[in-house]
Amino acid sequence: MYAITDYQSFFIEYLKKQSITKEPQNLYMPIDYILHLGGKRMRPVLTLMAAEIFDVSYVEALPAAMAVEVFHNFSLVHDDIMDAAPLRRGQVTVHEKWDLNTGILSGDAMLILAYQYFEQYEPVIFRDLAKLFSKTALEVCEGQQLDVDFEVRDDVTIPEYLQMIQYKTAVLVAAALKMGAIVADTTKENADLIYEFGLNLGLAFQLQDDYLDAFGDPETFGKQVGGDIIENKKTYLYLKAMQFSSESQKVQLKGFFGVQLDNSEEKIEAVKEIFNESGASKMTQEAIEVYTLKAFETLKKMTIAEEKKAILVTFGKNLMKRKV
Amino acid sequence: MYAITDYQSFFIEYLKKQSITKEPQNLYMPIDYILHLGGKRMRPVLTLMAAEIFDVSYVEALPAAMAVEVFHNFSLVHDDIMDAAPLRRGQVTVHEKWDLNTGILSGDAMLILAYQYFEQYEPVIFRDLAKLFSKTALEVCEGQQLDVDFEVRDDVTIPEYLQMIQYKTAVLVAAALKMGAIVADTTKENADLIYEFGLNLGLAFQLQDDYLDAFGDPETFGKQVGGDIIENKKTYLYLKAMQFSSESQKVQLKGFFGVQLDNSEEKIEAVKEIFNESGASKMTQEAIEVYTLKAFETLKKMTIAEEKKAILVTFGKNLMKRKV
Repeated sequence: MYAITDYQSFFIEYLKKQSITKEPQNLYMPIDYILHLGGKRMRPVLTLMAAEIFDVSYVEALPAAMAVEVFHNFSLVHDDIMDAAPLRRGQVTVHEKWDLNTGILSGDAMLILAYQYFEQYEPVIFRDLAKLFSKTALEVCEGQQLDVDFEVRDDVTIPEYLQMIQYKTAVLVAAALKMGAIVADTTKENADLIYEFGLNLGLAFQLQDDYLDAFGDPETFGKQVGGDIIENKKTYLYLKAMQFSSESQKVQLKGFFGVQLDNSEEKIEAVKEIFNESGASKMTQEAIEVYTLKAFETLKKMTIAEEKKAILVTFGKNLMKRKV
Repeated sequence: MYAITDYQSFFIEYLKKQSITKEPQNLYMPIDYILHLGGKRMRPVLTLMAAEIFDVSYVEALPAAMAVEVFHNFSLVHDDIMDAAPLRRGQVTVHEKWDLNTGILSGDAMLILAYQYFEQYEPVIFRDLAKLFSKTALEVCEGQQLDVDFEVRDDVTIPEYLQMIQYKTAVLVAAALKMGAIVADTTKENADLIYEFGLNLGLAFQLQDDYLDAFGDPETFGKQVGGDIIENKKTYLYLKAMQFSSESQKVQLKGFFGVQLDNSEEKIEAVKEIFNESGASKMTQEAIEVYTLKAFETLKKMTIAEEKKAILVTFGKNLMKRKV
């Protein structure tokens, strides 16, 4: 097995070799653009790692990893349209650099291109990969829809929120790992267990994202600290605070999340105080811990060498130790 | 074999039995809406017919036919956004009835749902169907992009135009037929020949659509006669006229296609006169004839009973006789 940074290099090397700039250029140039914007390439790296966990060379898993990354970028292009986002990874978004129609159509093409990468596998593997991919992709769409729906609802429950982040984020992490397992042709049990591992780690990751958005270090956090509070996003922190803060704090919090302010510094500080005082911060940290441990728990049932399990534990711990 | 109207009924019956209205409703309701707007269901009918041409019951081909119809409707939803179309089949378009984001996301989900219908086949058939589907879907995207690109170009050639309509329209007709052949597990030769048949018939069909848009009977033509002229669409008629009309007519035509008029009656009449005088109308009719005959020609090489070939010829002739 290699280090994470090695898998990143292997994947980027493979990505560079793909000839994406075909005709018509106005369709394929935006695809090439978004795929080369960078990012940690966490999802495809998981696919490569999982293949090697189950004793097959990462090389075998490169097309599946590419499918995962192309799909992830498809979802970014269409989500950025829906969120009217001007920037992605510090660069202009596709629909801003080109236009709305280009964003829609290039996104559509990427979703199809993702499926085409599975054609490099023999029929049974192809079917299993495409099936998992379709199920996952549909769940990601459902998660995005739930996210949109929740924006105008003020009665979202914690279980509903958890389902939304599971669909929007965690299932793709889980599927990325399981695809590596499918390529390696391991047992159904192992494939399902690594999916479970990824699902729980993905949930922990997203909850940590919620947490760091409010309490992360501005020096190292990639996005603007307090961004969710500015945008009135009803994250896990908010939902827990609405459940456990005093009546007066609830009124205050609801008031803050009903307005858009030009200068949000005071709002951010006041909201963070409520998050802390209500115990919401602590409960979020506990939930992150719970899902991380649940992820590690599934590894115990896996029939692979202990040193392989240790690699996944190290990966999980590093991911959860991040301050960014 | 059954009559076309029977296949239409079989398909609609199957469509009705699909449970598309799942949660989240805001994602699936628009899908249910567009799938039940009606239409001739020509593409799925072709899939069912092709299966029976190659001696397998249409029942086997229903999931593949459904994939074709779901994909076709996906492309309508996203194209209607790009064209800012208010109506589809006389009803409000998805992005108008709901909103832009719903149109994008429901469309994405439909593209994935289409792939899922192939999961009902065994791995080799699944792989062959999904592979043909991905190739076709990507070509449809490329065709749509070319169509968009051509709007702002005034040097589009006839071969370029033919490639655009081949990708945007004909490949899906061809693929619909070939999917029936794949389900029936016929020879590769037969599958490729019925694809060729569909490709040429699809081209003839689209050229006839161009022709009828200008010269169709207002009483029976589904869309507004002269719609392409009002919208300055550079169809086959226009491109041929620009090639073969007199210099003064070319100037006149270019002038007409450079303006948007509130009252277009005079423009429509003048443009149609140029289409007739330049020989463009006649050349378009000839091209329709050529592609139709080319379609029938491919049937000769097919190793199926003569009566089966006769059914495809009858279908093609009926399609080409339409005044609507």
